Amino acid sequence: MRFTTVRTAVGTKAARVEGEELVLLPYADVSELLASGEDWQARGGAADGERVPLEGAELAPLVPRPEKIFCVGLNYRDHAAEANLELPEYPTVFAKFARALIGPEDELVLPDPSISTWVDWELELGVVVGSPIRHASPEEALAGVAGYTIVDDISMRDWQLRTSQWLAGKTFEASTPVGPFLVTPDEVDPTAGMAMKLTVNGETMQESSTDQLAIGAAEVLSYISKIVTLVPGDLIATGTMAGVGHVRTPPVYLTDGDLVECSIEGLGSQTTRARL
Amino acid sequence: MRFTTVRTAVGTKAARVEGEELVLLPYADVSELLASGEDWQARGGAADGERVPLEGAELAPLVPRPEKIFCVGLNYRDHAAEANLELPEYPTVFAKFARALIGPEDELVLPDPSISTWVDWELELGVVVGSPIRHASPEEALAGVAGYTIVDDISMRDWQLRTSQWLAGKTFEASTPVGPFLVTPDEVDPTAGMAMKLTVNGETMQESSTDQLAIGAAEVLSYISKIVTLVPGDLIATGTMAGVGHVRTPPVYLTDGDLVECSIEGLGSQTTRARL
Repeated sequence: MRFTTVRTAVGTKAARVEGEELVLLPYADVSELLASGEDWQARGGAADGERVPLEGAELAPLVPRPEKIFCVGLNYRDHAAEANLELPEYPTVFAKFARALIGPEDELVLPDPSISTWVDWELELGVVVGSPIRHASPEEALAGVAGYTIVDDISMRDWQLRTSQWLAGKTFEASTPVGPFLVTPDEVDPTAGMAMKLTVNGETMQESSTDQLAIGAAEVLSYISKIVTLVPGDLIATGTMAGVGHVRTPPVYLTDGDLVECSIEGLGSQTTRARL
Repeated sequence: MRFTTVRTAVGTKAARVEGEELVLLPYADVSELLASGEDWQARGGAADGERVPLEGAELAPLVPRPEKIFCVGLNYRDHAAEANLELPEYPTVFAKFARALIGPEDELVLPDPSISTWVDWELELGVVVGSPIRHASPEEALAGVAGYTIVDDISMRDWQLRTSQWLAGKTFEASTPVGPFLVTPDEVDPTAGMAMKLTVNGETMQESSTDQLAIGAAEVLSYISKIVTLVPGDLIATGTMAGVGHVRTPPVYLTDGDLVECSIEGLGSQTTRARL
């Protein structure tokens, strides 16, 4: 099943995707649907409501205000090689705050050039939590996953790298597209390999598969669950692959008007235009 | 003026501190009071309500669910010297999630020893945001500060240091006391030097003054405001001083039953007992 969060005249709504239509559900967004209880999927699958065409719908960030967004660094075998870094034994987790999120077709807000021009992309498999996950084995953690989506972990490389901690470059306002869909685990299996591709102005920049993840989603969630309880609507961006702009020779960064397209097999695609 | 968040039979309430009494306000917590508008202080100062004794009141985390918690590393001249690290040119900012917060007299939940026994303390000056701060000069940022409080940035050092990113060791569930009070800037001035002290079982472990901050609160908030909008209720922990347990010879960590007392001149004190 597929769900999304759509903007309407009276605020956002969770919606079920049925072919080319959205069925509006009585929840403010996908997070609220997930927080409605363990049987959220049955409820979201059964509820009826107004139908609107998917085409032309204005999609919000899939989960607009997650309590927590964990991102993983250095988690693709090919990206670590590119950056000349060893794969760590433990997932390298860092944070992003919800205020960084935008919808999957929104404009990606570039900072004023006096603040940063080193704006880079990172296509990632996003995992959305559906039920509380605490002190969980990888198998138990997987049972708490609501589904998968696409995250472009936009990174201001100068701010990311000017101290040892990456947060500053990772949580710029209105920078990070998430969506379009929450696709439930009965439809897709990242461990089986789902093709991933990111293009900038039509040129392929990143291309890999979800089976290149060094530490898989289940293991990452299990690890985090020893630190803190993951709750419905929490978002985990599982890391990016080779091909980011910063390590190219010369480096390539996003500028006004650039069009970024991200797709993951089975999860749809997102198209965001960078704007000053 | 002083405000706090207190637990009552019907959930938490914001309260104004008047001598030895709390005046319960019609807001669920201090964050909700701050979010009520620019004139929150006048409103919070004027509102009347039920009075309860401060002694025996059960205080909640001062701001229970900040949208953002930014912490600063390596920001005291003496702590950087102790850790053999240079003071960075920019504030080293990292995150904590709200689920880590506890009240100023709550039990500090130690992880199961199979997960971590390297539980360390970090007394810090906390800054609470009162009105939106965006692209602000240090002076403008200061005008958006609601007040100051005490944060003990409890850190699981093994989890903090096992990868390059500190988040994992900084956001353990129910680890981080914040409070007891929000003290407004007309009452205290950190730049003028407020004495800070942390003891464990009565033994002084950290002792410094807020005027030892390398990058002051106004500059830290100004810096963050270039990244993202700070909003009412956001919490910034401005960094700790010399005397943490991890760098002692031999290292000292918190164990079951240890009593941690944190005080900052003008801001009161917090007393938390570590419990497995």
